[in-house]
Amino acid sequence: MSEPLRLGIAGLGTVGIGVVKIVQTHGDLLAARFGRPVEITAVSARSRGRNRGADISAYAWEDDPVALARRADVDIVVELMGGEDGPALALTRAAIAAGKDVVTANKAMLAIHGQGLAEEAEAAGVALRFEAAVAGGIPVIKALTEGLAGNRITRVMGVMNGTCNYILTRMEDAGLPYDTVFDEAAQLGYLEADPNLDVGGIDAAHKLTLLTAIAFGTRPVFSAIDIEGIQRISIDDIRHAADLGLRIKLLGVARMTGRGLEQSMSPCLVPADSPLGQLKGGTNMVVIEGDSVGQIVLRGPGAGEGPTASAVMADVADLARGLRIAPFGQPAATLEHVAAARATAAKPFYMRMTLLDRPGALARVAAALGDAGVSIDRMRQYGHAGADAPVIIVTHKTTRDAIDHALDLFQGTGVVVGDPVAMAIEHV
Amino acid sequence: MSEPLRLGIAGLGTVGIGVVKIVQTHGDLLAARFGRPVEITAVSARSRGRNRGADISAYAWEDDPVALARRADVDIVVELMGGEDGPALALTRAAIAAGKDVVTANKAMLAIHGQGLAEEAEAAGVALRFEAAVAGGIPVIKALTEGLAGNRITRVMGVMNGTCNYILTRMEDAGLPYDTVFDEAAQLGYLEADPNLDVGGIDAAHKLTLLTAIAFGTRPVFSAIDIEGIQRISIDDIRHAADLGLRIKLLGVARMTGRGLEQSMSPCLVPADSPLGQLKGGTNMVVIEGDSVGQIVLRGPGAGEGPTASAVMADVADLARGLRIAPFGQPAATLEHVAAARATAAKPFYMRMTLLDRPGALARVAAALGDAGVSIDRMRQYGHAGADAPVIIVTHKTTRDAIDHALDLFQGTGVVVGDPVAMAIEHV
Repeated sequence: MSEPLRLGIAGLGTVGIGVVKIVQTHGDLLAARFGRPVEITAVSARSRGRNRGADISAYAWEDDPVALARRADVDIVVELMGGEDGPALALTRAAIAAGKDVVTANKAMLAIHGQGLAEEAEAAGVALRFEAAVAGGIPVIKALTEGLAGNRITRVMGVMNGTCNYILTRMEDAGLPYDTVFDEAAQLGYLEADPNLDVGGIDAAHKLTLLTAIAFGTRPVFSAIDIEGIQRISIDDIRHAADLGLRIKLLGVARMTGRGLEQSMSPCLVPADSPLGQLKGGTNMVVIEGDSVGQIVLRGPGAGEGPTASAVMADVADLARGLRIAPFGQPAATLEHVAAARATAAKPFYMRMTLLDRPGALARVAAALGDAGVSIDRMRQYGHAGADAPVIIVTHKTTRDAIDHALDLFQGTGVVVGDPVAMAIEHV
Repeated sequence: MSEPLRLGIAGLGTVGIGVVKIVQTHGDLLAARFGRPVEITAVSARSRGRNRGADISAYAWEDDPVALARRADVDIVVELMGGEDGPALALTRAAIAAGKDVVTANKAMLAIHGQGLAEEAEAAGVALRFEAAVAGGIPVIKALTEGLAGNRITRVMGVMNGTCNYILTRMEDAGLPYDTVFDEAAQLGYLEADPNLDVGGIDAAHKLTLLTAIAFGTRPVFSAIDIEGIQRISIDDIRHAADLGLRIKLLGVARMTGRGLEQSMSPCLVPADSPLGQLKGGTNMVVIEGDSVGQIVLRGPGAGEGPTASAVMADVADLARGLRIAPFGQPAATLEHVAAARATAAKPFYMRMTLLDRPGALARVAAALGDAGVSIDRMRQYGHAGADAPVIIVTHKTTRDAIDHALDLFQGTGVVVGDPVAMAIEHV
């Protein structure tokens, strides 16, 4: 049996403690699989005294994570502190500079600084692995980078924020409005300290940034993603979608087109009986399409102590077994700069708007759509009590640009009340 | 850029030609991802002259696959001939003896000879990889061996024979009897030369053998699997299942219990709205449950040129990138001998039988079930025209042994016509 592989863990929140528990309970199993024992030599976290539900007294303690990264008795630095800058970034850079392999769950840091960190890691000859950064326990980074390495990837899609999916599922199941379910989620502790990271689609877009880079061999550029959150989804939208046999999901979509790389994280309608449509609660799902393989669907828990620690240990396993692979699947210097493209793929759209209840209102809206080049597949005006009429339109296939043009034209009709909602219907 | 990685391909059927096409069309992509170019240097197949839809004239031809395995200009031998013994086994052994890494899609060979081949490969210091042997394009070997390496696996389940799933799905969708759909499948070329490999559950059990060995760290023992095919499933079973909100799938299940390793490949009923229940046509699905990760579901095409070639290339990618891992995830010598256990996990069962239409018939059957310790959850007698009454029984949770005992007792009642059908209802 070889020398032990020694981990230094920075961050002892839920995931960090999950990793500690796996190492403590599965020593023999890990040694048999990895070909060498795994041990934790040092840890670092914000507060030393806190009771964490695991005995960490045998490990050296470092107040300063950077000091942990430089310890001679640490082979792999496991970064589980989170945050796109600050201590996590300082630790990661220090670990790379010290010649240590890094395993991290930090999607925000990698979405923003991934290109630079990958270049630094490759120059230093160390690994930078992040299975736990995307879709919790689902080994999706591995599936994409390794398991589908023979494919030209054509599309990647995913539901990758469990909190948003919980909110949307709960709204539908309980018939409750967004605000009520949002408050429930907050009380259940499902939301980040800044809830906009979840419901604004930021967290999910961080994850999509990483998948896109690997899938298409492009530089990770978070700012190239069109992001829209779920805050404007109403219970009416959910009911109308159900009437159409569809469900609303916060869906990330990345596809390479002749005009560039289209990336969006936004509420979309998907068939209710599709794998994505049937995804309930906090579960994540990633759909990967390649030219040889066709469509692969991966589903599993998107967060939590056990699942995320499982993903961290997958990276540790790879390093123990000698896998050396560029962070984004090919050398960072070969990742292409690709201009962000507005979504040009034609698809049907769902629109909900409120019209003044006056003669000719519907005709004006229909004319505006025609002027924008958008043709109507189905239109429904729902029963209403007050002066305003709720109207649902499903378009034939069109582009996001044409839809945005139509939304502009609506403002000039004088009959559209407030801001209409427009969501793509994604074929899956 | 390093030296090219040189493949020798034995077997130029659908999958072999799929591999040739990927190497020919994606040279730059593969070189960027693998860190070195991939090329094919030699091929071998039964008939040289056949038109295969790909130009193989640039590759050296070997009539004898064993000669291909020994060529100095071959780094990786890709075995795509199939068959559990014969030329495939001779080739694989020759390649290992010659110090070549082997990539194979041959589930039959590995299910029967996997332990010996793994020992030989490890002794020779070569890799033996088989992503393409299980579930076509789904990177399930990788997910299990590497992506979930930090977990104690608790259960593995899967629908892994697309032909059976096609037949069952088509029976339900078209309301057609088994024999008609079987003939359709034969005409469509979906069946193996020996159809029992498909409909008898053998092929799927070969695949389960491999997953089980990796999941539980046990020696692959094909003969330890309880196998039952789909030949006795009637359209009535499918309809009754639907009435109960269930669907019938040829389902492989492996779980470790205190009494040993339970492995079965048999028709089971699963909830119609579960991921397994919703699987249509030739698609495969594997469900893996681990103590940390919870449940992971992987879904994708289970066969065909592109998907299977994609899986072959995943193994080639790993070897190009330097991953060295024991075939079954840990050294073959450490794989445990585990006695096969009859399924002792309690679950509900579905039973269909035909009773003589005479007073007290149902009471006798109910008494036999009681004597076997099986309690009844639901019982339905369906309307009937002739002298025999079709009866469906759903039991409370019980064991396969108790069900088999009840089936024995039925024979003594004098009222049960023919052989009853009994299938587990698997909770997923």
